[in-house]
Amino acid sequence: LVSVLSSAIIVYRLPWTWKCSKLLMKFIHAGLNTIAMILAIVSMVAVFEFHNARNIPNMYSLHSWIGLTAVIFYSLQLFLGFAVFLLPFAPVTLRAALMPIHVYSGLTIFATVIATALMGITEKLIFSLKNPAYSASPPEATFVNCLGLLLVIYGALILWMASRPHWKRPPEENVKVLRPVGGTPEGTEAESTMTDGSNADKSDLRVTSEAARKQNLKFDEAGQRSTM
Amino acid sequence: LVSVLSSAIIVYRLPWTWKCSKLLMKFIHAGLNTIAMILAIVSMVAVFEFHNARNIPNMYSLHSWIGLTAVIFYSLQLFLGFAVFLLPFAPVTLRAALMPIHVYSGLTIFATVIATALMGITEKLIFSLKNPAYSASPPEATFVNCLGLLLVIYGALILWMASRPHWKRPPEENVKVLRPVGGTPEGTEAESTMTDGSNADKSDLRVTSEAARKQNLKFDEAGQRSTM
Repeated sequence: LVSVLSSAIIVYRLPWTWKCSKLLMKFIHAGLNTIAMILAIVSMVAVFEFHNARNIPNMYSLHSWIGLTAVIFYSLQLFLGFAVFLLPFAPVTLRAALMPIHVYSGLTIFATVIATALMGITEKLIFSLKNPAYSASPPEATFVNCLGLLLVIYGALILWMASRPHWKRPPEENVKVLRPVGGTPEGTEAESTMTDGSNADKSDLRVTSEAARKQNLKFDEAGQRSTM
Repeated sequence: LVSVLSSAIIVYRLPWTWKCSKLLMKFIHAGLNTIAMILAIVSMVAVFEFHNARNIPNMYSLHSWIGLTAVIFYSLQLFLGFAVFLLPFAPVTLRAALMPIHVYSGLTIFATVIATALMGITEKLIFSLKNPAYSASPPEATFVNCLGLLLVIYGALILWMASRPHWKRPPEENVKVLRPVGGTPEGTEAESTMTDGSNADKSDLRVTSEAARKQNLKFDEAGQRSTM
């Protein structure tokens, strides 16, 4: 689940995919997230059936509360992602306004899923290791602790890749030069505002589309700076 | 601890502080982080003494492993922060190169601390609630689960505030207009590259300092884009 989730997150960050069409990449991103969602639902059903079979209460632990919250937000994220970014109906301004929120929620849900996994590992180690107990540090405990630590390192690496501006897929305008068989003309302006700041990092890819400038003006009017 | 940590993180994000000198804000940021570090060390000593007094083994759980890793990285982060950003010896290019790493590590350590707290809460609930057990959902369990959920929401809000480009402290060049009694001329170029992309979001604050452009060229030469 975590590996499908993380590949869905970094799929735009692989330089060799930058020559693929934006629409194809969107389909891969959406497809991987749909697979992750199906895996999440299958595992939740398995947990409930396991609990019921063993007469263990459901949804009592912090692990389950935070896990369920993450799944609810994840399904919301998936639904909104389909509706706004994949279906062709949403206007460019809406896409541009929602993209930073989509990116933030995606990464926050990913971090929350890792935290939930760590709580689940902690619970499982405490409940399963009885003789010798978890506190006696049997080899299984040390092994699973190492796996948990690796999970944190793995999550940190994915967040690093996802937050580096120079690993961001370049905006459509520039890719078109490499892709003469044009793909999706609609939504092009939105893509350039979606890069949301990274433009300053690439002098060869500087984009100042009308939509981006309007967006900036809106931010400035919104007044955080007007108190200065 | 988490509240001191988070105030240290968002201290540059409060618009009413943008008229304070950069050096003062750096001192507040470093001071709050030092307080958080002291609190972390005091609590770790307390945990070890509590364990020893009750003959509970130390450092056996995933919670302790990840917590100790976070504290080690946090002390490294604090030491490097002092050496590079507070002391006046580091060259501007080094500051500019290390700032994105400093920001990323800070936020990742913050998220890891929250995950560690959640694992600690899970452990504590399992070990302390015996009659009725945690799985019977006594009021204490529900109450502490709510606290854990609030901790996640709180962490997500801090990460939101810390990652919004338009809540970023504007670069020095522009603040100077408002602050005729100039503060710290050294490091000014570095600050503008530290904004690291957000410039595209504020048309009234666009900065294209020499250092920023050199940085961009370096990125482009580094080759992620050269395959295009």
